[in-house]
This record gives sequence, C-alpha cells and structure tokens, in this order.
Amino acid sequence: MKVKGFSAAAVQAGIRYKDRLDLALIYSATPAALGAVFTASTVKAAPVLLGMERLRSGKAQAIVVNSGNANACTGEEGMRMARTVGALAAQALKIDEELVQVASTGVIGAQLDPAPFAAAMPRLAAKLSEDSFDELARAIMTTDTVPKIASATIRIDGVEVNLLACAKGAGMIMPNMATMLCFAITDANIAQPALQAAVRSGADLSFNRITVDGDTSTNDTMLCLANGAAGNTLLDESRPEQLAVFTEALHGMFKDLAKQIVRDGEGATKLVTVRIEGAASQEDAVNAARTIANSPLVKTAFFGEDANWGRIIAALGRSGAAFQPEHVAIAFDDALLVENGFGLGKEAEAAATQALKQKEFAVTVRLGAGAAAAEMLTCDLSCDYVKINANYRS
Amino acid sequence: MKVKGFSAAAVQAGIRYKDRLDLALIYSATPAALGAVFTASTVKAAPVLLGMERLRSGKAQAIVVNSGNANACTGEEGMRMARTVGALAAQALKIDEELVQVASTGVIGAQLDPAPFAAAMPRLAAKLSEDSFDELARAIMTTDTVPKIASATIRIDGVEVNLLACAKGAGMIMPNMATMLCFAITDANIAQPALQAAVRSGADLSFNRITVDGDTSTNDTMLCLANGAAGNTLLDESRPEQLAVFTEALHGMFKDLAKQIVRDGEGATKLVTVRIEGAASQEDAVNAARTIANSPLVKTAFFGEDANWGRIIAALGRSGAAFQPEHVAIAFDDALLVENGFGLGKEAEAAATQALKQKEFAVTVRLGAGAAAAEMLTCDLSCDYVKINANYRS
Repeated sequence: MKVKGFSAAAVQAGIRYKDRLDLALIYSATPAALGAVFTASTVKAAPVLLGMERLRSGKAQAIVVNSGNANACTGEEGMRMARTVGALAAQALKIDEELVQVASTGVIGAQLDPAPFAAAMPRLAAKLSEDSFDELARAIMTTDTVPKIASATIRIDGVEVNLLACAKGAGMIMPNMATMLCFAITDANIAQPALQAAVRSGADLSFNRITVDGDTSTNDTMLCLANGAAGNTLLDESRPEQLAVFTEALHGMFKDLAKQIVRDGEGATKLVTVRIEGAASQEDAVNAARTIANSPLVKTAFFGEDANWGRIIAALGRSGAAFQPEHVAIAFDDALLVENGFGLGKEAEAAATQALKQKEFAVTVRLGAGAAAAEMLTCDLSCDYVKINANYRS
Repeated sequence: MKVKGFSAAAVQAGIRYKDRLDLALIYSATPAALGAVFTASTVKAAPVLLGMERLRSGKAQAIVVNSGNANACTGEEGMRMARTVGALAAQALKIDEELVQVASTGVIGAQLDPAPFAAAMPRLAAKLSEDSFDELARAIMTTDTVPKIASATIRIDGVEVNLLACAKGAGMIMPNMATMLCFAITDANIAQPALQAAVRSGADLSFNRITVDGDTSTNDTMLCLANGAAGNTLLDESRPEQLAVFTEALHGMFKDLAKQIVRDGEGATKLVTVRIEGAASQEDAVNAARTIANSPLVKTAFFGEDANWGRIIAALGRSGAAFQPEHVAIAFDDALLVENGFGLGKEAEAAATQALKQKEFAVTVRLGAGAAAAEMLTCDLSCDYVKINANYRS
C-alpha cells in the first residue's frame, strides 16, 4: 500500500534498548494539512505540548516518533529536547522545523538523551521509502505483540484517494505508560478544518470507545497528514457528500485499529463489544457502556467464561445512567439472558455461556429508557494482565 | 463486649449452602433510634428498598440478615419475600414487623425460598444472647477470610456508653456481589436526626473511602441502632461537645472496619493509604485519591513492589483534579520520590521501594494547588484477585 507523496523509515537508534527499531519518520514531499487529537490528561508529555503548539498552523510535513522514552514529566528541559528532536529531523529533511510533529512513547520521568537521535537521524532520512510503513508500525510497538496497520482506497470525483494508518497500544511496559499513538496519512486534497473535524470525530468513535484498563496516558497522540497529491477537487464542508466518503474511510481505519489494539490488549484472551441500546441520552449510553467495559468484576467474569449478568447489572447501577431495573434486557450475542430485569434461567444461561466461550462476542444491554445507543470495545482481565504489569523484579 | 439491651444470634439455615452460618439476628429489648445508609446504586436490592421505606419512621428493634442470596433483581416477588422474612422475624420476636430491618447478601437474580427462613427463625430467636456478636459477624461473611468487629466504650456526662459494630465485604463469590454490610449498635441515648447525621458522615469518611475494585453493590447497607439503655442525657445538636464524643467513637469504629475490609480484600497482599494533600478543593482531593486508588496500573505496580510513580502521575492526570505537573510531590511513607514533578533518582527510588515492600504503607501526593486533603484506602491487584473472580468452572 502506497500513499502518493509519502515515505517512511525506521531505524535502531539505541534510545533505550539495543537491537530494536525505536526511531521512525513519516515524510510528505510537500507540506500537508494536519488534523490532530492529543491526550485529555492534565499531565501532557513534552512532545504533546509541542504538537499542540504546532497544530495551530494546521500544517505539517513530517512526523518523528521514538519509543523507549516518553519525554513526560520532564519539564522545561523536556520541552527543549522535544524541539531538538524536531530540529534534527527538520535538518535531515531540509524542511522548516515548525512543520515537524514529534511523538514519544516509553519511560516516564527520564530526560531524553539527544545523542542517539543526532547520530541516527541522517541514516533515518536516507532510508525513507514509500514501502516502509510496516517497519514504522513495528518501530512504535512497546508491549504490543503485533504491528497494527489499516488502509483504504476510495474514489472521490473519479479520482483515486489512498489512506493508511498505523497505531500502537494499549500496552505498557514497566515503567512505561499505556500510550496510544496513531499516525494516519492520505493523499486526499482536503481543507484543514474539515480534516481536523474528521480526525476529532473519528477519535470519539474509535480510540475513545475502547478500554483495556481505563487508564489514559500522558502521551496519547493521533496525527493525520493530508498532502493533496491525489489531485481531487478540494474536500470541504461545501461538498458534504464527497467529504462523507472520505470521513467514512478515515473512521473505518480508526475503528479497525482500535479493534486491533483491544485484541492485542495485555493478557487479553477475549475481544468484547459492549453495546448499550435504549438509553435516555447519548451520554447515558456511553457512560453505561464504559462502566461495564471497565469493571474488573465484569472483566474477570469474561475471563472465567461466566455469564454473570449480576455483575453487569451492578455496573449499570453505579454508572449514573437513568433506567428502571425491571426494564433491562441483556444478551450475549443472540442468547437473551435477562428480560424485564429477570434472569431467564439455566437454559438461557447455558446458551449465553456458549457465546462467552468464543474469542469474540458482544454483550448487548437494552435499558428501555429511550432511543440512544453506544458501543465500547473491551477485553477480559486475566492473570497475565496482572503478571505483565506487576513485572516481578528478581 | 456487651451493649446494654442488645442481643444477637446466628444459625445454619441452609439458605444456599449446608453447614455454614447464614442467618442472623440483632435484637434490642426496646425500640431503638435508627440511622442508616444504603447503596447509591440505581439497582437496589429488595431488602434495601424495604429498609429505605422503614427508615422513614426513624426506629427499629431488630435486624435480620442472611447470606447466600442477595434478593436483588427479584422484582415485586422479591419485595414480598423481604417483607415475609421481616414478618417471620417479627413473629418470632413478638414485635411490630415495621420495626424489623432486613439485609441480604449473596446470589443476585434468584428468588428467596421462604422455607429455610420459616424453619430456622424460632430457633434463631431462642438463641439470642448478649455474647453472640462474634457469631453474627461470622454469619455475614462470604469471601471474607476473617470476621470484622470493632467496639468502643466512652463516657458521656459520667455515664458509660458502649458501641459495637461488625461488617462484611468487599468480597464476592461468583455470582455474588461485593456487598458491604455494616451493623452497629449502641446503648447511647441519642436523638434520631443526630444519629442519622453521624452515620451518614461516618460512611463518607470510612466505607466511601475504600476501594478493592471500584464496584458498588446492589445491597450495600449500613444500619445503626441506638436504644438509650446507657441512660445518658439525650444527645442531640443542642449539646455539640457531648455529641462529638459519640460521633468520634462511632466514626472510629467505622474507619477501623473499613480498614479491616481492605486488608481482607480479595487477593490483597498490601494495604495502601492514598493521601492527597494541597488540592484546590475537597472534591479534587477525593477524586484524585479515588482515581489513583482504583487504577489497575497503580494497583498491579503495588503488587509488583515497583515504585512506579509515572503510573501515579498518569492517574492524577486523568482524575480531573486541578494541578500543575511541575508542583507535584510524591512520597511512599517518608521516602520522597518526586518533587516539583521530577523523579529524584535511583537512591530515592530504592528508598521508596523499601516502603513498598511492607504489608502496609502510605502514598502521599502533594498537588501544590490549595489546602484540601483526602485519603482513600486501597489494596494491590494480584493474580489471586483474578483467580477468585474468574472462578473457573470445571
């Protein structure tokens, strides 16, 4: 998969570990429109603060990303280091450093050493190739067990438009955080405000609808570059139908990557869609879905393949969503387990348990309180999750 | 420990399991003032709904409690069964059934069978004794590994006043819920509104400040009976100093029991006090403490004895509390690990790790944003927690 005018590269820079890809670059032959979403955490890593500052121009031409060090909780020195890394990339690429976005994932609270960046950057720039996005996806992995890539090709006004995105997370390796990074590129010709809106709404429908353990990182970053090389007529809000074709393709990639992240969740053995229907409001639907999807009791029951609807009802009860218990229905895939707030007995439970034994299944909860619906993707909570994160030191 | 005018008893009624205490009674020789706090969950079990209804009178003379069945998600039939259980107790005790409080813990979604209650109640009433509170504390255990009792003796106006309380939770055994029950009795002579206020504020400072896994049960219930048998001059808001002596003793018992519950948390190997200082508001302090205390990443790091302050900062960052990262300080007991948002290096980390190796320690976080403070008690998240709650079915 190639996207016109874009190239990528990854190298082993030795930032924290030897012999692994840990520094990568995305480059557009021309300055591109930039859409971006950053962590909602009060504690924002230096590259996030720098990225927010540079997003104001609405443009970028390159993204430099490292693993091994998050450059978070590093204060003014950390900000200087983020600028330095960006400047090193700009120098190697011969572009304006204001057009470089910087992203980091790894250890919190350690200062970046600029030496490995300075040493590796010329080599990295020299390696840029249209075919290297797989390598980039591998370079940003931490406890991820597989690289995560999605792509799409659409036609707009008869012109072929390509989109590609890769992501990492939600994994953490002590003492790293569960950083979520997503980089998307497209050769679409699209106005920046429309791109920003599509990225923002895409985040809400994908990465903001998944949970492995409910934690939010200091470094979560989504960046989307659109360089216009496809040559389509400009997409903006004056052409809602064409814009919708693009937005749908972009959101499809984000949702695909979000699913890949949960499937690869630390210690996860099951991918579960929690769907709320019949909520009084969209906010209620999302809150109810999120509370169930984050409940350790619900997640351990998934791991134990136990159709324990009492835990789901209990999570609902503390979610703040408006509902009458006697109107609640719960199904595991097609197996209806609870109706009018009552369990439907042993046979229904046996059918629900069969659904639970699958690698992937959906829990649908109907609240009977309105017409709003929402989904969250989650995984089970296994012993391996605890082992990975407790990380016994010998 | 005896409390004048109170007696208790527990029997094996065979409600769900044979050969274990599962039905218990607390009885006051005279009607007592009642203070009570019930679950905040939208889904309230039948005995909770009945208890809320009967709290309106401000009085009670007996509490009947069973384990093995929570009588939750049981609809109108469940309400009838809760009334039936109360009526059976009233009949055996020859008191008005409106003066009986009913509490249940156990399976959600199964109807109560009244037969074992009817069969056991006369035997239970006949066994009432001033010395049987230990048995009562054992009868309400589910996955608790030890009974939980606290007591206090104070002097008010030269008169000896006794208080005793027992609790269960937060344990759950599939498919039971993490129900928290607390029953307190005192021979104090106290006006009901003052008692209710003391129980309410006590809940906020004790059981609402602990977390094992962040889940709230459908059956959480705190009941406090004060029968006045001590003969002290009536305590009410017109005598704030004397009332404060009583309130302090009551709160002390609640805090003691709350600590016992967390220490006995499922799979817990460590008891951790999370203390927030320097918050901009009380709400911020509580939210920050709760977010850290509930974070699976923080709790697995405790289990792994890893002084991983990055996870604490990340939890703070998503808590919604106002603060500047560069003003944050973090200590494990006396070992200062982070100051001005920066890690203090390997030696500081080694000292913090020593603190973490203890069975009990405190994490203190100073936000530098104001003067508010709050504490939460939590435990670590271990492999055993997952095993207990996944509860493999063979």
